[in-house]
Amino acid sequence: MVDITNKNTTLRTAVAQAVVKVSKPETIAAIKNDTVPKGNVFAMSKAAGLLGVKRTPDILPDCHPLPIEFTGVEYKINGLEITVLFTVKTIYKTGVEVEAMHGASVVALNMYDMLKPIDKGIEIHNIKLLHKKGGKSDFKDTFR
Amino acid sequence: MVDITNKNTTLRTAVAQAVVKVSKPETIAAIKNDTVPKGNVFAMSKAAGLLGVKRTPDILPDCHPLPIEFTGVEYKINGLEITVLFTVKTIYKTGVEVEAMHGASVVALNMYDMLKPIDKGIEIHNIKLLHKKGGKSDFKDTFR
Amino acid sequence: MVDITNKNTTLRTAVAQAVVKVSKPETIAAIKNDTVPKGNVFAMSKAAGLLGVKRTPDILPDCHPLPIEFTGVEYKINGLEITVLFTVKTIYKTGVEVEAMHGASVVALNMYDMLKPIDKGIEIHNIKLLHKKGGKSDFKDTFR
Amino acid sequence: MVDITNKNTTLRTAVAQAVVKVSKPETIAAIKNDTVPKGNVFAMSKAAGLLGVKRTPDILPDCHPLPIEFTGVEYKINGLEITVLFTVKTIYKTGVEVEAMHGASVVALNMYDMLKPIDKGIEIHNIKLLHKKGGKSDFKDTFR
Amino acid sequence: MVDITNKNTTLRTAVAQAVVKVSKPETIAAIKNDTVPKGNVFAMSKAAGLLGVKRTPDILPDCHPLPIEFTGVEYKINGLEITVLFTVKTIYKTGVEVEAMHGASVVALNMYDMLKPIDKGIEIHNIKLLHKKGGKSDFKDTFR
Amino acid sequence: MVDITNKNTTLRTAVAQAVVKVSKPETIAAIKNDTVPKGNVFAMSKAAGLLGVKRTPDILPDCHPLPIEFTGVEYKINGLEITVLFTVKTIYKTGVEVEAMHGASVVALNMYDMLKPIDKGIEIHNIKLLHKKGGKSDFKDTFR
Repeated sequence: MVDITNKNTTLRTAVAQAVVKVSKPETIAAIKNDTVPKGNVFAMSKAAGLLGVKRTPDILPDCHPLPIEFTGVEYKINGLEITVLFTVKTIYKTGVEVEAMHGASVVALNMYDMLKPIDKGIEIHNIKLLHKKGGKSDFKDTFR
Repeated sequence: MVDITNKNTTLRTAVAQAVVKVSKPETIAAIKNDTVPKGNVFAMSKAAGLLGVKRTPDILPDCHPLPIEFTGVEYKINGLEITVLFTVKTIYKTGVEVEAMHGASVVALNMYDMLKPIDKGIEIHNIKLLHKKGGKSDFKDTFR
Repeated sequence: MVDITNKNTTLRTAVAQAVVKVSKPETIAAIKNDTVPKGNVFAMSKAAGLLGVKRTPDILPDCHPLPIEFTGVEYKINGLEITVLFTVKTIYKTGVEVEAMHGASVVALNMYDMLKPIDKGIEIHNIKLLHKKGGKSDFKDTFR
Repeated sequence: MVDITNKNTTLRTAVAQAVVKVSKPETIAAIKNDTVPKGNVFAMSKAAGLLGVKRTPDILPDCHPLPIEFTGVEYKINGLEITVLFTVKTIYKTGVEVEAMHGASVVALNMYDMLKPIDKGIEIHNIKLLHKKGGKSDFKDTFR
Repeated sequence: MVDITNKNTTLRTAVAQAVVKVSKPETIAAIKNDTVPKGNVFAMSKAAGLLGVKRTPDILPDCHPLPIEFTGVEYKINGLEITVLFTVKTIYKTGVEVEAMHGASVVALNMYDMLKPIDKGIEIHNIKLLHKKGGKSDFKDTFR
Repeated sequence: MVDITNKNTTLRTAVAQAVVKVSKPETIAAIKNDTVPKGNVFAMSKAAGLLGVKRTPDILPDCHPLPIEFTGVEYKINGLEITVLFTVKTIYKTGVEVEAMHGASVVALNMYDMLKPIDKGIEIHNIKLLHKKGGKSDFKDTFR
């Protein structure tokens, strides 16, 4: 684990995405109409993601435990693709990029798990960092 | 959570993949030569994945806790892409597809975390089920 | 921990309740209209409860880890009181009463947490077993 | 999750209660005489509560992880009722009310679990905040 | 992780020990008289051990999750040494040796943690398997 | 749990050890040549230890959750003994001695688990604090 005892505390923000691709329009309709048998997909996956992001240092050996001061989940539907945007903020010595990517992947996996009984062809694409702020270098994915 | 009290116990196997795409050949070389500063990427990510897969029902609300009887991780390098193959087996009433996908995603995220200090352009692609056996229907991704 | 190596495996069901008492009708309306700022209270609290019930043996020293084969959450609104009904099923050697009570209490605590910003007077009442089936003795709370 | 990046750090204290109601005087005697078969009820339930309170952000999606700087458990016996008083302190940007309520509920549930073999009629009542200090508004339950 | 899908289910028992060596008789007296400031050392360390043993597959990558059907903790005081005996039983396809050793080590570490304020010279010795039963080969440590 | 709300934040370092004693030179050779069937023993045990140390407050009731800012694992082979040195740093109000001892014990237990299939005679010895810095009193084990 990187030694951060000498680093400064600053506000750090990271936004990551995951793309959930379903295989038919009926799946999108079931989500929107809240008729998926396992329950409300967006609300329950948000809950899983908010919990999951706090478990990042329990799952990834080199991640520092840190004071997560904000997490937010947004969903954007575009045809058969649902983009999950996961935002994490902290005021600490190290960034929250991996936390945001972990959060996005948990939300996407939970959507897969809830939708599997009604759609066998779901895939998860493009888990990646969209931008981060704070720390040594800002980052912005130019292809967003 | 789906009621599985009336289901039969059978051997279930699932294999999922995640693709980690690095941005330069030096990253692949550092992994192969075991010179990544955070340590041995393949062994440590395997450890994270083996632990992570057992946490699946702690992270995803609808997943049943189940007796994971085998987990295996394989890595295939192809140019700048590393494919993670994650296999899970159980003898139980419900399948291990989501477990395999969760395991693959944890391995991929840990690779991202360990490689981030030497490569800022890493993305995770195509987390998907490759095949499953046991249960009502087998499945084989034909585009593998 | 009680030694259960000699006990028989049977289907066990337990239903527990928790009562969340809010202090004003506006709180009930906000839940029903899905306008609580932290999100959909029933769906997110269900997610927390489904996850929480699986953590019971991690939280209570004497609880056996067991294969939870069904969990369900129901809400009943009666004036200012919301009754949470939490059902757990297993086919195992020991019952799921404590698991059901733990699930009900996690759902209730999460409702408290999500509603706290809009209602300072919430209390949790009557966490108790309503009935159980299977094992040495059935149980039915006669005052239900 | 509420964004707390702009909030100030202050000393926060919260005390919550849970009431465990047993169904016969023999249960109280067994606790006092340390003859409960599963072990020392007060010490083991305190251990469960101290651990449980630290798991609050793992169980409740919207709770911020925070530096818990003190937790204390007190028991008061009054006839067939045992009141659990759970105190939590932090120096942080957000309060510890939910943490105190979660701690009280874990202690109460563990008492239920340990006493269940000798008393089938136990209920948990009145999980509520007794007082809190620090933050925007102090709170004192006037009916304590 | 070793593939156990083809193994038979049998009753498995393992007993492991850890030795906690304190540096002065006053420490032993404080434990016996229940005057250690952090609380009842034996009861609270038992609680930690019972919980810890159930977390073994969460902490050690290659350990299979398994149905722990009994855990017991015994303490033996001999001069300045306290021997922790930790027993685990399961009816499953793989043994519980590592679980028993993990349980013993958690109990010992918790004793260290609770006693540290009154004794700076504590060490933990000889975490080892004492005997196991069931599976391919029984084992008995001849120097016990 | 000790109340630390009034303590000062300083840099704290602790180094603990655990000694893993194998029963034959072939075991040491298998570790060095990376031919242990379960995988790379040093890398996977380091991963387990880095994760385990962050779980210390989840396992030991009285341990404060704290910002772990560095963890490092070193191995020293001497004949049939492998000494695990585990270092933890924090900038906080309380020390990381127990965290370092917990980390060392998890690394040692994982080595035991991975080596068990090829060596039945492994023991873990001398889990102890080697030195600590920061806080009221420094400490150095004079027999190191």
